Amino acid sequence: MRNTVATPAITPDQIDTSNARLEAEAVRDYAHLGEQLARRGIDVEAVLAEVMAFSVAVPSWGLGTGGTRFGRYPIAGGPNTLFEKIEDCAVIQQLTQATPRVSLHFPWDKVKDYDELKGFAAAQGLGFDAVNSNTFQDQAGQGLSYKFGSLTHADAATRQQAIDHNLECIEIGQKLDAKALTVWLGDGSNFAGQSDFTRALERYLDSMAVVYAGLPDDWRVFMEHKLYEPAFYSTVIQDWGTSILCAQKLGPKAQCLVDLGHHAPNVNIEMIVARLSQFGKLGGFHFNDSKYGDDDLDAGSVNPFQLFLVFNELVEAKSRDPHGFDPAYMLDQSHNITDPIESLMMSVGSIEQALTRALLIDRVTLRGYQDGNDPLMAHATLKEAYDTDVRPILKIARLRVGAAIDPVGVYRASGYRAQKAAIRITQGATGGGIV
Amino acid sequence: MRNTVATPAITPDQIDTSNARLEAEAVRDYAHLGEQLARRGIDVEAVLAEVMAFSVAVPSWGLGTGGTRFGRYPIAGGPNTLFEKIEDCAVIQQLTQATPRVSLHFPWDKVKDYDELKGFAAAQGLGFDAVNSNTFQDQAGQGLSYKFGSLTHADAATRQQAIDHNLECIEIGQKLDAKALTVWLGDGSNFAGQSDFTRALERYLDSMAVVYAGLPDDWRVFMEHKLYEPAFYSTVIQDWGTSILCAQKLGPKAQCLVDLGHHAPNVNIEMIVARLSQFGKLGGFHFNDSKYGDDDLDAGSVNPFQLFLVFNELVEAKSRDPHGFDPAYMLDQSHNITDPIESLMMSVGSIEQALTRALLIDRVTLRGYQDGNDPLMAHATLKEAYDTDVRPILKIARLRVGAAIDPVGVYRASGYRAQKAAIRITQGATGGGIV
Amino acid sequence: MRNTVATPAITPDQIDTSNARLEAEAVRDYAHLGEQLARRGIDVEAVLAEVMAFSVAVPSWGLGTGGTRFGRYPIAGGPNTLFEKIEDCAVIQQLTQATPRVSLHFPWDKVKDYDELKGFAAAQGLGFDAVNSNTFQDQAGQGLSYKFGSLTHADAATRQQAIDHNLECIEIGQKLDAKALTVWLGDGSNFAGQSDFTRALERYLDSMAVVYAGLPDDWRVFMEHKLYEPAFYSTVIQDWGTSILCAQKLGPKAQCLVDLGHHAPNVNIEMIVARLSQFGKLGGFHFNDSKYGDDDLDAGSVNPFQLFLVFNELVEAKSRDPHGFDPAYMLDQSHNITDPIESLMMSVGSIEQALTRALLIDRVTLRGYQDGNDPLMAHATLKEAYDTDVRPILKIARLRVGAAIDPVGVYRASGYRAQKAAIRITQGATGGGIV
Amino acid sequence: MRNTVATPAITPDQIDTSNARLEAEAVRDYAHLGEQLARRGIDVEAVLAEVMAFSVAVPSWGLGTGGTRFGRYPIAGGPNTLFEKIEDCAVIQQLTQATPRVSLHFPWDKVKDYDELKGFAAAQGLGFDAVNSNTFQDQAGQGLSYKFGSLTHADAATRQQAIDHNLECIEIGQKLDAKALTVWLGDGSNFAGQSDFTRALERYLDSMAVVYAGLPDDWRVFMEHKLYEPAFYSTVIQDWGTSILCAQKLGPKAQCLVDLGHHAPNVNIEMIVARLSQFGKLGGFHFNDSKYGDDDLDAGSVNPFQLFLVFNELVEAKSRDPHGFDPAYMLDQSHNITDPIESLMMSVGSIEQALTRALLIDRVTLRGYQDGNDPLMAHATLKEAYDTDVRPILKIARLRVGAAIDPVGVYRASGYRAQKAAIRITQGATGGGIV
Repeated sequence: MRNTVATPAITPDQIDTSNARLEAEAVRDYAHLGEQLARRGIDVEAVLAEVMAFSVAVPSWGLGTGGTRFGRYPIAGGPNTLFEKIEDCAVIQQLTQATPRVSLHFPWDKVKDYDELKGFAAAQGLGFDAVNSNTFQDQAGQGLSYKFGSLTHADAATRQQAIDHNLECIEIGQKLDAKALTVWLGDGSNFAGQSDFTRALERYLDSMAVVYAGLPDDWRVFMEHKLYEPAFYSTVIQDWGTSILCAQKLGPKAQCLVDLGHHAPNVNIEMIVARLSQFGKLGGFHFNDSKYGDDDLDAGSVNPFQLFLVFNELVEAKSRDPHGFDPAYMLDQSHNITDPIESLMMSVGSIEQALTRALLIDRVTLRGYQDGNDPLMAHATLKEAYDTDVRPILKIARLRVGAAIDPVGVYRASGYRAQKAAIRITQGATGGGIV
Repeated sequence: MRNTVATPAITPDQIDTSNARLEAEAVRDYAHLGEQLARRGIDVEAVLAEVMAFSVAVPSWGLGTGGTRFGRYPIAGGPNTLFEKIEDCAVIQQLTQATPRVSLHFPWDKVKDYDELKGFAAAQGLGFDAVNSNTFQDQAGQGLSYKFGSLTHADAATRQQAIDHNLECIEIGQKLDAKALTVWLGDGSNFAGQSDFTRALERYLDSMAVVYAGLPDDWRVFMEHKLYEPAFYSTVIQDWGTSILCAQKLGPKAQCLVDLGHHAPNVNIEMIVARLSQFGKLGGFHFNDSKYGDDDLDAGSVNPFQLFLVFNELVEAKSRDPHGFDPAYMLDQSHNITDPIESLMMSVGSIEQALTRALLIDRVTLRGYQDGNDPLMAHATLKEAYDTDVRPILKIARLRVGAAIDPVGVYRASGYRAQKAAIRITQGATGGGIV
Repeated sequence: MRNTVATPAITPDQIDTSNARLEAEAVRDYAHLGEQLARRGIDVEAVLAEVMAFSVAVPSWGLGTGGTRFGRYPIAGGPNTLFEKIEDCAVIQQLTQATPRVSLHFPWDKVKDYDELKGFAAAQGLGFDAVNSNTFQDQAGQGLSYKFGSLTHADAATRQQAIDHNLECIEIGQKLDAKALTVWLGDGSNFAGQSDFTRALERYLDSMAVVYAGLPDDWRVFMEHKLYEPAFYSTVIQDWGTSILCAQKLGPKAQCLVDLGHHAPNVNIEMIVARLSQFGKLGGFHFNDSKYGDDDLDAGSVNPFQLFLVFNELVEAKSRDPHGFDPAYMLDQSHNITDPIESLMMSVGSIEQALTRALLIDRVTLRGYQDGNDPLMAHATLKEAYDTDVRPILKIARLRVGAAIDPVGVYRASGYRAQKAAIRITQGATGGGIV
Repeated sequence: MRNTVATPAITPDQIDTSNARLEAEAVRDYAHLGEQLARRGIDVEAVLAEVMAFSVAVPSWGLGTGGTRFGRYPIAGGPNTLFEKIEDCAVIQQLTQATPRVSLHFPWDKVKDYDELKGFAAAQGLGFDAVNSNTFQDQAGQGLSYKFGSLTHADAATRQQAIDHNLECIEIGQKLDAKALTVWLGDGSNFAGQSDFTRALERYLDSMAVVYAGLPDDWRVFMEHKLYEPAFYSTVIQDWGTSILCAQKLGPKAQCLVDLGHHAPNVNIEMIVARLSQFGKLGGFHFNDSKYGDDDLDAGSVNPFQLFLVFNELVEAKSRDPHGFDPAYMLDQSHNITDPIESLMMSVGSIEQALTRALLIDRVTLRGYQDGNDPLMAHATLKEAYDTDVRPILKIARLRVGAAIDPVGVYRASGYRAQKAAIRITQGATGGGIV
């Protein structure tokens, strides 16, 4: 089951040794859980199969130390190049066997030779997911500035530069067998009056139409809305409403991407997921969690019940359209104080946990309570699934696919980061945007 | 200019006497303001003409004392019947000459004879605006309960009852020369799992299609979204995104209505106004203000700058489509501790103030700063208009149309409420929903 | 273990029969959980003992159907008198054995003979918790109105009336062996300028000083802060900051009460709990859950992880001060669409679940990760406890104390509500505050 | 009236020429406003005198281009050294004559010779305001990292380093005749469980007690609370409640500083100002504006009415304690897309405008409406002041003190920034925290 890769950073032995130590208990717990689920009419093996089939992409930029405008605290042994980031992704894939694809971000991840990159990744058992364009900051040597916008800039030449960049992303993505472009735009305004909302959106649609026209037949483009930041009065694609209207205008390949931290306070995100799905425009996810704004915390660390409710909608949507429903799942977190590899592995687990719990929901019973106006029991039906300790399923799934039952434990024991610290250059602490 | 009505509650003399006392200063201030605006290239008389042409509908339910689930504090002399509410509306119209239409709410406002009602209103210079259906509470003698929904209820018979009610509202509205139906739905859920988001919306669209089919040719239907309350986990039309998608599905007569208090915290409402307008679906407004939730406070009392920014979008949209752009303006407030007549008159003034300030924006200059990426001066251009004390224009507008320069002053001096208190039965303080 | 009561509504037989059916599986699951916890060094029996010792008070007003300003949907068989509410409380206590006390609200719960009431309750195994005063709505026949405030009213006579009411609550409470008064104030303002914040708080402190002086030696007074509603611009005790400053001024018997739904969006409530505890002023809780405002939804139904984090602080505080730490736990929910008895029983379960999970936290290990700056593992230590399915412990606890393993199941099977519907008068659907 | 400075960047001639052009209209508008105010019983000259006496400090760090974690867009001619920042501050002071003090931030603003710095500033008419310590990011060569906290770090040596830094700030501040230290702490946590709330605050109090002990007799220390960022789960001084409790513990020199952008959504900030003032702990302000989080936008640009309500409280507090009430006023904004000099000058104007409007409130009348329970007229009394166009007062105030009537106009005409661009090195666009 385990994908074998060339010269893995963590040896299969290390995984096997740890698993051997944990297997007996995991098997015992799994057996008991299986018995419990059987009482509820659930076949634990069927659930296990779905969990084993699940995967989520890892963002290349998530491997580096994140930060805020107030500063960053780089860790020793952090990656400095895309190849080093790929190495780190390979560790995550090795230990979880649930992250076979990396999502790249350009121009950050530009390299000279994409064949070499592809080969390097493949040798580690990795492929590539959606590519991400970046027109929310200026790069050294860039012709025109995005200070006042990119795809929506008042100046046509600046818009063209941003369009060209997106087209180039598609081109690169094709070389890497990616099948989607994710466009998150920083465009917006900091002052009432600065931007004409309507003309800005018209320019967005015009620019995106060109990008859209550049999509290969089997590609999709994901539009990622965000309420604020880096613009603090308005953003162009501020919410799912604007996003889906634009997706409709652009065409069938255009879909909406939900980042869990990009919404107004109190908003019912699981309902937005349902709506986008109902109207055929749910493209994918950037998983993370947040308490205040776009905090980019580890998925499931702030509100695990919400993550479960999102997966409830995903499982529900899948059951309605088993073949057509195919959103792209990606992590998008900022690891400011943890080792990114550790946080990403934990987040994979949290997401798998939410999925597994959602798979346990008795949908026939639920529907009965819904139609019978029994909110208490409808809710209890969700809670019955949510309250179940599904970790035995996750552990056995990892065991069967050759991943580590305890990814963080094996990782820490391996000394990977310390080894890298001896090789990789550690960046100095750098100030954030305000200095 | 003044519309003369039969047996007005406030005599023209009372208005004239007060105006005579205030006129000289108003004229003097207006002259100075005219001079100031002339320096900026603005013709104060042109602005005045637009202010004089502006009107906003008054909601019948706003005339009674509002309250919360914790209780109400009815005032002496408050109206008990629709005819008494119309009387009160006539006072507002007399004193402001800006509220010639009343928006009714059924079944609350049902009467036996709509011709009589129409005549009664007309005799006081009043007509009727959009009619509002009510399926968010049960009425005495109602066949089926809306406890678990109305247009989206799981049970077809309950849905049909709600559909029938809406169709009846259209029928009544036709008798009263109304041209629109406003549908605000209380349907939603209090528990995760209680409602299947997707099926509920499908039922909504099915029900509304029947209502839509019942619309006369020259009618529109306004859908009013709301984030929460009375449902506290989810609502069916939770935001403008769902609202506009439904409006698209239903057809050209379906439009979206914005209530300023129905949004998530921090949301940029003026942008939503712009988006709805851009996509041809801005139907109208329920004006009020709020600090926390759907507080239904007096328009402009919490964030007058936001109200100005909304009118900036409206003036802008009108300038793009001078003939087609025609949203319906209505007040929708809950007057829990003030005399509703006073609050409504003050709110009319706040709305006129926002409109007037928005009319002062130098749009050519603004566009120049927008296209020239000068956010500071673009913002200053808005502020130049906003900071202007436009009250002299409002006062002269009132003077010219025969309204009171100081509506609240004349109203208080008239002793209207005390007179009514001697005639009308005062309701006892009643507990709210929790008792 | 079971408290025997006179003529219970649910016969012990009904409970025993249901438990007999569920016991074997519960015991089996408990055994496996015990094994799992033993691996982590946790003695499941010790946890069980703490869960069995836990209790939470039920609010008398929570037994009636709740509602919003938009309306209420009373259920058939709902209680109309305090005695009927006590009957319903007795059902909850019988089935959960975790709610031995009722919290009363005056003047709603006034009766002629408090000895009779006490005897009636005692016969059902019930006592009384904190008494709640009510000066947020006017009662029929009340001398002065609270429309513009009560304990902070500008008029001294109105303040005195409110003070007297609170003193009367203490008097009644003493007859019922209550030991605390909870004061939640509706006082505030709807308009900027309406209230002088400082003078209003001075009046509050003056009024409360008189109430405080009326407290018996072994009583406490709990101040309950709330951000908004029914006042929508400002409230007098708007947050925990004002609450604790007032508690400090008043004296050692004055403490702060946390209602989980009374905070601004995004606020870290578990930290407020910690702060109040640290400064010696955590008096108690009103448990419920909310997504938007003071939604008063069932405890743990919106964000169960947050409820767990609150209990983490409570368990932590208890471990620091095992003898002195003694907050009062009460439920305070509005059951708008469910049978209150069912919702309250489910909520008791959710709270017990949060407590139980919090008891599983390995505090020594946690402290090690905290001091060692290992946020990932510190968080994982919490999650290890949270992810555990503790329902077997709850079930065995119920079994041992003679409660129902499945309270809602037994309740539904008993036909209690239908029986009451045949006896009790059903209220008509009543409009909320806006009509 | 004008403070003459050595070699001003903008010549007095430039100011005088512009003023000469604008004076006549300003005088004419001022005369008319004076007449209007006289009708209300207000002496415009008395108001003018208070406006002329007002000043606000400028933050050294506000002169550089701000940014977000996503990037910065430095402007040509931006300052690179503290001396260049002081030059820019001098321009603001020259043109507004309302910003005679600069607030420094260490270690960012460390220089070799503080006498030289003081002399350099004095030569430009500038002195120094509160000094700000910085322990929220690591500096090159710093011994111990603040990644996991500073004053509250689990490790005593790290705490001592942070304490020493604060003591050094006091030392430097004394050399510059500053009289206060502002401590804003980035300490907090990103994960539930990471931090023990109680122990962290105990450590804070211990650390701050040492800093407090180092304060000279005539100094104050300001504690600045913040809900979140850079920590995204919890912060140590999360709100004004924790802040004031700590201020009480520390002693009379400890006070609370309010940054307008550091609160939870919807919170009533003007009430917090009133509460801090009532309890004797209002130390000062960081003025800015925000729509979403700590957006650090220009003061008054998002919600000018709120800024007015804050000044209403300040004017009110001053009227209660004319001699003792003395909060420190500072700007604290992030100028991401505007020229900082321009934004700061505009913000000074917005603040003066809020102050001026607040000075126009008829407090006797207001109090009458408050005590008479007339919320409508109480609110109208505030609005009467707010709706007044006070810009003529600001203009005449500037004229009389030798500032520019149109600061931005004179600044732009002067070509200052372009001149500096020729001299100063322009920084490259730099990525924010995530790269």
